[in-house]
Amino acid sequence: MSSVKRRGLLFIVSGPAGSGKTTIITKLIDAGDFVFSVSATTRAPRPGEVDGVDYFFVTKEDFKDRIRRGEMLEYAQYVDNYYGTPRRAVEKQLEEGKDVLLDIEVQGALQVMQQMKDAVSILILPPNSKELEKRLRSRGTEIESVIQARLERAHLEFKYFTQYNYVVISKDNCVDEAADEIRAIKKAESLKSSRNTYIKESFFE
Amino acid sequence: MSSVKRRGLLFIVSGPAGSGKTTIITKLIDAGDFVFSVSATTRAPRPGEVDGVDYFFVTKEDFKDRIRRGEMLEYAQYVDNYYGTPRRAVEKQLEEGKDVLLDIEVQGALQVMQQMKDAVSILILPPNSKELEKRLRSRGTEIESVIQARLERAHLEFKYFTQYNYVVISKDNCVDEAADEIRAIKKAESLKSSRNTYIKESFFE
Repeated sequence: MSSVKRRGLLFIVSGPAGSGKTTIITKLIDAGDFVFSVSATTRAPRPGEVDGVDYFFVTKEDFKDRIRRGEMLEYAQYVDNYYGTPRRAVEKQLEEGKDVLLDIEVQGALQVMQQMKDAVSILILPPNSKELEKRLRSRGTEIESVIQARLERAHLEFKYFTQYNYVVISKDNCVDEAADEIRAIKKAESLKSSRNTYIKESFFE
Repeated sequence: MSSVKRRGLLFIVSGPAGSGKTTIITKLIDAGDFVFSVSATTRAPRPGEVDGVDYFFVTKEDFKDRIRRGEMLEYAQYVDNYYGTPRRAVEKQLEEGKDVLLDIEVQGALQVMQQMKDAVSILILPPNSKELEKRLRSRGTEIESVIQARLERAHLEFKYFTQYNYVVISKDNCVDEAADEIRAIKKAESLKSSRNTYIKESFFE
Protein backbone atom coordinates (compact mmCIF):
# COMPACT_ATOMS: atom_id res chain seq x y z
CA MET A 1 0.00 0.00 0.00
CA SER A 2 2.71 2.47 0.93
CA SER A 3 4.22 2.04 -2.50
CA VAL A 4 1.15 3.60 -4.07
CA LYS A 5 1.33 7.38 -4.21
CA ARG A 6 -2.11 8.52 -3.20
CA ARG A 7 -3.57 11.17 -5.48
CA GLY A 8 -5.17 14.08 -3.64
CA LEU A 9 -8.88 14.84 -3.86
CA LEU A 10 -10.39 17.97 -5.36
CA PHE A 11 -13.13 19.69 -3.36
CA ILE A 12 -15.40 22.39 -4.72
CA VAL A 13 -17.02 24.45 -1.97
CA SER A 14 -19.76 27.01 -2.60
CA GLY A 15 -22.10 28.95 -0.36
CA PRO A 16 -23.93 32.26 -0.44
CA ALA A 17 -22.61 35.34 1.35
CA GLY A 18 -23.74 34.86 4.95
CA SER A 19 -23.46 31.06 4.80
CA GLY A 20 -20.42 31.02 7.07
CA LYS A 21 -18.40 29.46 4.28
CA THR A 22 -15.31 31.64 4.66
CA THR A 23 -14.99 31.02 8.40
CA ILE A 24 -15.37 27.26 7.95
CA ILE A 25 -12.93 27.04 5.06
CA THR A 26 -10.32 29.15 6.83
CA LYS A 27 -10.51 26.76 9.78
CA LEU A 28 -9.95 23.73 7.53
CA ILE A 29 -7.04 25.31 5.66
CA ASP A 30 -5.39 26.48 8.89
CA ALA A 31 -5.71 22.97 10.34
CA GLY A 32 -3.96 21.52 7.29
CA ASP A 33 -6.93 19.48 6.07
CA PHE A 34 -6.83 21.09 2.63
CA VAL A 35 -4.70 23.42 0.55
CA PHE A 36 -5.95 26.27 -1.57
CA SER A 37 -5.11 26.51 -5.21
CA VAL A 38 -3.68 29.80 -6.47
CA SER A 39 -6.01 31.61 -8.86
CA ALA A 40 -5.02 33.58 -11.94
CA THR A 41 -6.15 37.15 -12.52
CA THR A 42 -5.61 39.96 -14.98
CA ARG A 43 -5.95 42.68 -12.37
CA ALA A 44 -2.81 44.47 -11.22
CA PRO A 45 -1.09 43.23 -8.04
CA ARG A 46 -1.87 45.27 -4.94
CA PRO A 47 0.98 46.37 -2.65
CA GLY A 48 2.44 43.31 -0.94
CA GLU A 49 0.80 40.73 -3.21
CA VAL A 50 3.22 38.14 -4.58
CA ASP A 51 2.91 36.49 -7.99
CA GLY A 52 2.35 32.74 -7.62
CA VAL A 53 1.36 33.13 -3.98
CA ASP A 54 -1.65 35.46 -3.84
CA TYR A 55 -2.47 35.10 -7.53
CA PHE A 56 -0.83 34.27 -10.78
CA PHE A 57 -0.80 37.76 -12.31
CA VAL A 58 -1.16 37.49 -16.06
CA THR A 59 -2.05 39.74 -18.97
CA LYS A 60 -5.45 39.68 -20.60
CA GLU A 61 -3.91 38.26 -23.74
CA ASP A 62 -2.32 35.45 -21.75
CA PHE A 63 -5.56 34.75 -19.87
CA LYS A 64 -7.59 34.54 -23.08
CA ASP A 65 -4.97 32.20 -24.57
CA ARG A 66 -5.27 29.93 -21.54
CA ILE A 67 -9.05 29.85 -21.92
CA ARG A 68 -8.71 28.93 -25.61
CA ARG A 69 -6.24 26.16 -24.80
CA GLY A 70 -8.59 24.73 -22.16
CA GLU A 71 -6.16 25.49 -19.36
CA MET A 72 -8.71 27.12 -17.05
CA LEU A 73 -10.89 24.87 -14.89
CA GLU A 74 -13.27 27.81 -14.58
CA TYR A 75 -13.17 31.53 -15.04
CA ALA A 76 -15.32 34.62 -14.75
CA GLN A 77 -15.11 38.26 -15.71
CA TYR A 78 -15.72 40.92 -13.05
CA VAL A 79 -15.88 44.52 -14.19
CA ASP A 80 -12.91 44.68 -16.52
CA ASN A 81 -10.82 41.77 -15.27
CA TYR A 82 -10.65 38.00 -15.54
CA TYR A 83 -10.35 35.64 -12.60
CA GLY A 84 -9.96 31.89 -12.87
CA THR A 85 -8.48 28.60 -11.71
CA PRO A 86 -5.56 27.26 -13.74
CA ARG A 87 -5.87 23.54 -14.29
CA ARG A 88 -2.15 22.81 -14.22
CA ALA A 89 -1.59 24.22 -10.72
CA VAL A 90 -4.48 22.14 -9.37
CA GLU A 91 -3.27 18.97 -11.13
CA LYS A 92 0.22 19.43 -9.71
CA GLN A 93 -1.10 19.67 -6.14
CA LEU A 94 -3.33 16.62 -6.63
CA GLU A 95 -0.39 14.62 -7.98
CA GLU A 96 1.59 15.59 -4.90
CA GLY A 97 -1.17 13.95 -2.86
CA LYS A 98 -2.62 17.20 -1.55
CA ASP A 99 -6.35 17.63 -1.06
CA VAL A 100 -7.23 20.82 -2.88
CA LEU A 101 -10.13 23.06 -1.95
CA LEU A 102 -11.63 25.49 -4.45
CA ASP A 103 -13.72 28.22 -2.83
CA ILE A 104 -15.87 29.13 -5.75
CA GLU A 105 -19.30 30.56 -6.61
CA VAL A 106 -21.98 28.45 -8.22
CA GLN A 107 -21.34 29.25 -11.90
CA GLY A 108 -17.63 28.51 -11.56
CA ALA A 109 -18.38 25.36 -9.55
CA LEU A 110 -20.56 24.02 -12.36
CA GLN A 111 -17.70 24.61 -14.82
CA VAL A 112 -15.26 22.65 -12.64
CA MET A 113 -17.74 19.79 -12.14
CA GLN A 114 -17.96 19.49 -15.93
CA GLN A 115 -14.20 19.22 -16.30
CA MET A 116 -13.25 17.27 -13.19
CA LYS A 117 -15.70 14.39 -12.88
CA ASP A 118 -13.84 13.14 -9.83
CA ALA A 119 -14.27 16.35 -7.87
CA VAL A 120 -16.31 16.37 -4.68
CA SER A 121 -18.73 19.28 -4.40
CA ILE A 122 -20.08 20.73 -1.18
CA LEU A 123 -22.70 23.44 -0.73
CA ILE A 124 -22.61 25.31 2.59
CA LEU A 125 -25.92 26.82 3.66
CA PRO A 126 -27.35 28.57 6.69
CA PRO A 127 -30.32 26.74 8.26
CA ASN A 128 -32.93 28.82 6.38
CA SER A 129 -33.52 32.07 4.53
CA LYS A 130 -34.51 33.98 7.70
CA GLU A 131 -31.15 33.11 9.24
CA LEU A 132 -29.38 34.11 6.03
CA GLU A 133 -31.10 37.49 6.05
CA LYS A 134 -30.29 37.99 9.73
CA ARG A 135 -26.61 37.29 9.12
CA LEU A 136 -26.44 39.63 6.15
CA ARG A 137 -28.05 42.41 8.20
CA SER A 138 -25.90 41.80 11.27
CA ARG A 139 -22.82 42.76 9.30
CA GLY A 140 -24.21 46.28 9.47
CA THR A 141 -22.15 47.35 6.52
CA GLU A 142 -24.41 46.63 3.64
CA ILE A 143 -27.17 48.74 2.21
CA GLU A 144 -30.65 47.33 1.77
CA SER A 145 -30.40 46.90 -1.99
CA VAL A 146 -27.25 44.78 -1.62
CA ILE A 147 -28.91 42.59 1.00
CA GLN A 148 -31.95 42.10 -1.23
CA ALA A 149 -29.72 41.29 -4.22
CA ARG A 150 -27.84 38.68 -2.18
CA LEU A 151 -31.05 37.03 -0.99
CA GLU A 152 -32.36 37.00 -4.53
CA ARG A 153 -29.12 35.46 -5.74
CA ALA A 154 -29.22 32.76 -3.04
CA HIS A 155 -32.76 31.98 -4.17
CA LEU A 156 -31.72 31.62 -7.81
CA GLU A 157 -28.73 29.47 -6.94
CA PHE A 158 -30.95 26.97 -5.15
CA LYS A 159 -31.86 25.39 -8.44
CA TYR A 160 -28.32 23.95 -8.54
CA PHE A 161 -28.74 22.36 -5.10
CA THR A 162 -28.78 18.78 -6.37
CA GLN A 163 -25.74 19.34 -8.60
CA TYR A 164 -23.67 19.36 -5.43
CA ASN A 165 -22.73 16.03 -3.87
CA TYR A 166 -23.12 17.21 -0.30
CA VAL A 167 -24.85 19.94 1.66
CA VAL A 168 -23.51 21.18 4.98
CA ILE A 169 -25.68 23.38 7.19
CA SER A 170 -23.75 26.02 9.14
CA LYS A 171 -25.78 26.55 12.26
CA ASP A 172 -25.11 29.58 14.43
CA ASN A 173 -21.99 29.14 16.58
CA CYS A 174 -21.36 25.70 15.12
CA VAL A 175 -18.37 26.36 12.89
CA ASP A 176 -16.49 23.41 14.39
CA GLU A 177 -19.37 21.06 13.71
CA ALA A 178 -19.54 22.14 10.05
CA ALA A 179 -15.75 21.78 9.71
CA ASP A 180 -15.96 18.26 11.19
CA GLU A 181 -18.69 17.37 8.72
CA ILE A 182 -16.46 18.42 5.84
CA ARG A 183 -13.61 16.36 7.34
CA ALA A 184 -15.95 13.34 7.47
CA ILE A 185 -16.84 13.89 3.81
CA LYS A 186 -13.14 14.00 2.95
CA LYS A 187 -12.45 10.78 4.85
CA ALA A 188 -15.44 8.95 3.36
CA GLU A 189 -14.57 10.05 -0.18
CA SER A 190 -11.04 8.72 0.26
CA LEU A 191 -12.53 5.34 1.22
CA LYS A 192 -14.68 4.94 -1.90
CA SER A 193 -13.95 1.67 -3.64
CA SER A 194 -13.75 3.50 -6.98
CA ARG A 195 -10.83 5.52 -5.61
CA ASN A 196 -9.06 2.44 -4.25
CA THR A 197 -9.06 -0.07 -7.06
CA TYR A 198 -5.30 -0.51 -6.53
CA ILE A 199 -6.24 -2.64 -3.51
CA LYS A 200 -8.00 -5.03 -5.85
CA GLU A 201 -4.85 -5.33 -7.91
CA SER A 202 -2.30 -5.53 -5.10
CA PHE A 203 -4.13 -7.59 -2.48
CA PHE A 204 -2.91 -10.98 -3.63
CA GLU A 205 0.60 -9.97 -4.60
CA MET B 1 -35.69 21.10 9.95
CA SER B 2 -36.70 19.55 13.27
CA SER B 3 -40.17 18.96 11.87
CA VAL B 4 -38.77 16.55 9.29
CA LYS B 5 -38.47 13.02 10.60
CA ARG B 6 -35.10 11.82 9.38
CA ARG B 7 -35.19 8.40 7.80
CA GLY B 8 -32.39 6.11 8.95
CA LEU B 9 -29.71 4.82 6.60
CA LEU B 10 -29.17 1.19 5.67
CA PHE B 11 -25.59 -0.11 5.75
CA ILE B 12 -24.45 -3.39 4.27
CA VAL B 13 -21.16 -4.59 5.69
CA SER B 14 -19.21 -7.57 4.32
CA GLY B 15 -15.76 -8.92 4.91
CA PRO B 16 -13.99 -12.26 4.75
CA ALA B 17 -13.32 -14.33 7.86
CA GLY B 18 -10.17 -12.80 9.31
CA SER B 19 -11.01 -9.28 8.13
CA GLY B 20 -11.72 -8.04 11.63
CA LYS B 21 -15.29 -7.30 10.62
CA THR B 22 -16.99 -8.76 13.68
CA THR B 23 -14.81 -6.85 16.15
CA ILE B 24 -15.35 -3.57 14.32
CA ILE B 25 -19.09 -4.03 13.96
CA THR B 26 -19.53 -5.01 17.60
CA LYS B 27 -17.75 -1.80 18.61
CA LEU B 28 -20.09 0.31 16.46
CA ILE B 29 -23.25 -1.41 17.70
CA ASP B 30 -22.13 -1.15 21.34
CA ALA B 31 -21.42 2.56 20.88
CA GLY B 32 -24.94 3.10 19.53
CA ASP B 33 -23.87 4.18 16.05
CA PHE B 34 -26.00 1.51 14.40
CA VAL B 35 -28.62 -1.08 15.24
CA PHE B 36 -28.73 -4.63 13.97
CA SER B 37 -31.73 -5.98 12.20
CA VAL B 38 -33.14 -9.29 13.44
CA SER B 39 -32.78 -12.10 10.91
CA ALA B 40 -35.27 -14.84 10.22
CA THR B 41 -34.33 -18.53 10.30
CA THR B 42 -35.97 -21.92 10.00
CA ARG B 43 -33.59 -23.59 12.44
CA ALA B 44 -34.84 -24.42 15.92
CA PRO B 45 -34.15 -21.96 18.74
CA ARG B 46 -31.23 -22.89 20.96
CA PRO B 47 -31.63 -22.73 24.74
CA GLY B 48 -31.94 -19.09 25.80
CA GLU B 49 -32.65 -17.71 22.33
CA VAL B 50 -35.71 -15.46 22.16
CA ASP B 51 -37.99 -15.14 19.14
CA GLY B 52 -37.87 -11.59 17.73
CA VAL B 53 -34.65 -10.84 19.60
CA ASP B 54 -32.04 -13.36 18.46
CA TYR B 55 -33.97 -14.41 15.38
CA PHE B 56 -37.46 -14.56 14.05
CA PHE B 57 -38.00 -18.32 14.23
CA VAL B 58 -40.29 -19.39 11.43
CA THR B 59 -41.29 -22.61 9.70
CA LYS B 60 -39.89 -23.57 6.30
CA GLU B 61 -43.32 -23.11 4.79
CA ASP B 62 -43.55 -19.61 6.20
CA PHE B 63 -40.02 -18.75 5.05
CA LYS B 64 -40.70 -19.92 1.50
CA ASP B 65 -43.94 -17.91 1.47
CA ARG B 66 -42.02 -14.81 2.49
CA ILE B 67 -39.53 -15.37 -0.32
CA ARG B 68 -42.37 -15.74 -2.82
CA ARG B 69 -44.02 -12.55 -1.59
CA GLY B 70 -40.74 -10.62 -1.93
CA GLU B 71 -40.54 -10.03 1.81
CA MET B 72 -36.91 -11.10 2.19
CA LEU B 73 -34.19 -8.59 1.38
CA GLU B 74 -31.83 -11.52 1.01
CA TYR B 75 -31.69 -15.14 2.04
CA ALA B 76 -29.48 -18.18 1.84
CA GLN B 77 -29.74 -21.86 2.59
CA TYR B 78 -27.15 -23.51 4.85
CA VAL B 79 -27.28 -27.25 5.20
CA ASP B 80 -31.00 -27.82 5.73
CA ASN B 81 -32.10 -24.40 6.95
CA TYR B 82 -32.94 -20.96 5.59
CA TYR B 83 -31.52 -17.72 6.93
CA GLY B 84 -32.53 -14.27 5.73
CA THR B 85 -33.31 -10.62 6.36
CA PRO B 86 -37.00 -9.68 6.53
CA ARG B 87 -37.66 -6.44 4.69
CA ARG B 88 -40.43 -5.25 6.97
CA ALA B 89 -38.31 -5.26 10.14
CA VAL B 90 -35.59 -3.25 8.38
CA GLU B 91 -38.08 -0.76 6.95
CA LYS B 92 -39.63 -0.22 10.37
CA GLN B 93 -36.26 0.60 11.92
CA LEU B 94 -35.37 2.97 9.07
CA GLU B 95 -38.69 4.76 9.47
CA GLU B 96 -37.95 5.19 13.15
CA GLY B 97 -34.80 7.04 12.11
CA LYS B 98 -32.43 4.26 13.11
CA ASP B 99 -29.31 3.53 11.08
CA VAL B 100 -29.43 -0.18 10.40
CA LEU B 101 -26.38 -2.35 9.83
CA LEU B 102 -26.62 -5.67 8.01
CA ASP B 103 -23.63 -7.94 8.62
CA ILE B 104 -23.86 -10.09 5.58
CA GLU B 105 -21.74 -12.17 3.22
CA VAL B 106 -21.14 -11.12 -0.37
CA GLN B 107 -23.96 -13.03 -2.11
CA GLY B 108 -26.53 -11.73 0.35
CA ALA B 109 -25.08 -8.24 0.10
CA LEU B 110 -25.56 -8.24 -3.67
CA GLN B 111 -29.21 -9.23 -3.20
CA VAL B 112 -29.82 -6.34 -0.79
CA MET B 113 -28.06 -3.84 -3.09
CA GLN B 114 -30.48 -4.88 -5.83
CA GLN B 115 -33.51 -4.25 -3.68
CA MET B 116 -32.39 -1.24 -1.65
CA LYS B 117 -30.80 1.21 -4.06
CA ASP B 118 -30.29 3.69 -1.25
CA ALA B 119 -28.23 1.31 0.87
CA VAL B 120 -24.59 2.10 1.62
CA SER B 121 -22.26 -0.85 1.18
CA ILE B 122 -18.90 -1.28 2.90
CA LEU B 123 -16.32 -4.00 2.38
CA ILE B 124 -13.92 -4.59 5.26
CA LEU B 125 -10.57 -6.08 4.27
CA PRO B 126 -7.26 -6.86 5.93
CA PRO B 127 -4.29 -5.00 4.35
CA ASN B 128 -3.36 -7.93 2.06
CA SER B 129 -3.70 -11.68 1.55
CA LYS B 130 -0.59 -12.49 3.64
CA GLU B 131 -2.13 -10.71 6.60
CA LEU B 132 -5.43 -12.48 5.99
CA GLU B 133 -3.67 -15.86 6.00
CA LYS B 134 -1.73 -14.94 9.15
CA ARG B 135 -4.94 -14.01 10.97
CA LEU B 136 -6.71 -17.19 9.91
CA ARG B 137 -3.76 -19.28 11.13
CA SER B 138 -3.39 -17.36 14.40
CA ARG B 139 -6.82 -18.52 15.48
CA GLY B 140 -5.20 -21.92 15.84
CA THR B 141 -8.51 -23.65 15.65
CA GLU B 142 -8.88 -24.27 11.96
CA ILE B 143 -7.52 -27.11 9.92
CA GLU B 144 -5.47 -26.42 6.83
CA SER B 145 -8.20 -27.28 4.33
CA VAL B 146 -10.58 -24.76 5.98
CA ILE B 147 -7.92 -22.04 5.86
CA GLN B 148 -7.26 -22.75 2.20
CA ALA B 149 -10.99 -22.73 1.44
CA ARG B 150 -11.39 -19.35 3.16
CA LEU B 151 -8.47 -17.84 1.24
CA GLU B 152 -9.88 -19.19 -1.99
CA ARG B 153 -13.27 -17.75 -1.15
CA ALA B 154 -11.79 -14.32 -0.35
CA HIS B 155 -10.06 -14.46 -3.72
CA LEU B 156 -13.29 -15.25 -5.56
CA GLU B 157 -15.21 -12.55 -3.71
CA PHE B 158 -12.75 -9.92 -4.87
CA LYS B 159 -14.50 -9.68 -8.19
CA TYR B 160 -17.35 -7.90 -6.38
CA PHE B 161 -14.97 -5.31 -4.93
CA THR B 162 -16.29 -2.42 -7.00
CA GLN B 163 -19.92 -3.30 -6.26
CA TYR B 164 -19.31 -1.95 -2.78
CA ASN B 165 -19.43 1.80 -2.26
CA TYR B 166 -16.60 1.88 0.25
CA VAL B 167 -13.65 -0.22 1.32
CA VAL B 168 -12.23 -0.05 4.84
CA ILE B 169 -8.87 -1.63 5.59
CA SER B 170 -8.61 -3.15 9.07
CA LYS B 171 -4.95 -2.84 9.96
CA ASP B 172 -3.59 -4.82 12.88
CA ASN B 173 -4.49 -3.26 16.23
CA CYS B 174 -6.42 -0.47 14.51
CA VAL B 175 -10.00 -1.43 15.26
CA ASP B 176 -10.77 2.08 16.51
CA GLU B 177 -9.46 3.62 13.31
CA ALA B 178 -11.62 1.34 11.17
CA ALA B 179 -14.67 2.08 13.34
CA ASP B 180 -14.01 5.82 12.98
CA GLU B 181 -13.80 5.43 9.22
CA ILE B 182 -17.21 3.78 9.17
CA ARG B 183 -18.57 6.60 11.35
CA ALA B 184 -17.19 9.13 8.84
CA ILE B 185 -18.90 7.23 6.02
CA LYS B 186 -22.16 7.35 7.95
CA LYS B 187 -21.86 11.09 8.57
CA ALA B 188 -20.91 11.87 4.96
CA GLU B 189 -23.75 9.76 3.58
CA SER B 190 -26.23 11.62 5.77
CA LEU B 191 -24.95 14.89 4.24
CA LYS B 192 -25.54 13.90 0.62
CA SER B 193 -27.68 16.45 -1.16
CA SER B 194 -29.80 13.63 -2.62
CA ARG B 195 -30.74 12.62 0.93
CA ASN B 196 -31.56 16.18 1.97
CA THR B 197 -33.77 17.57 -0.75
CA TYR B 198 -36.23 18.69 1.94
CA ILE B 199 -33.80 21.56 2.58
CA LYS B 200 -34.41 22.78 -0.94
CA GLU B 201 -38.14 22.79 -0.31
CA SER B 202 -38.14 24.29 3.18
CA PHE B 203 -35.31 26.84 2.97
CA PHE B 204 -37.43 29.80 1.84
CA GLU B 205 -40.55 29.02 3.89
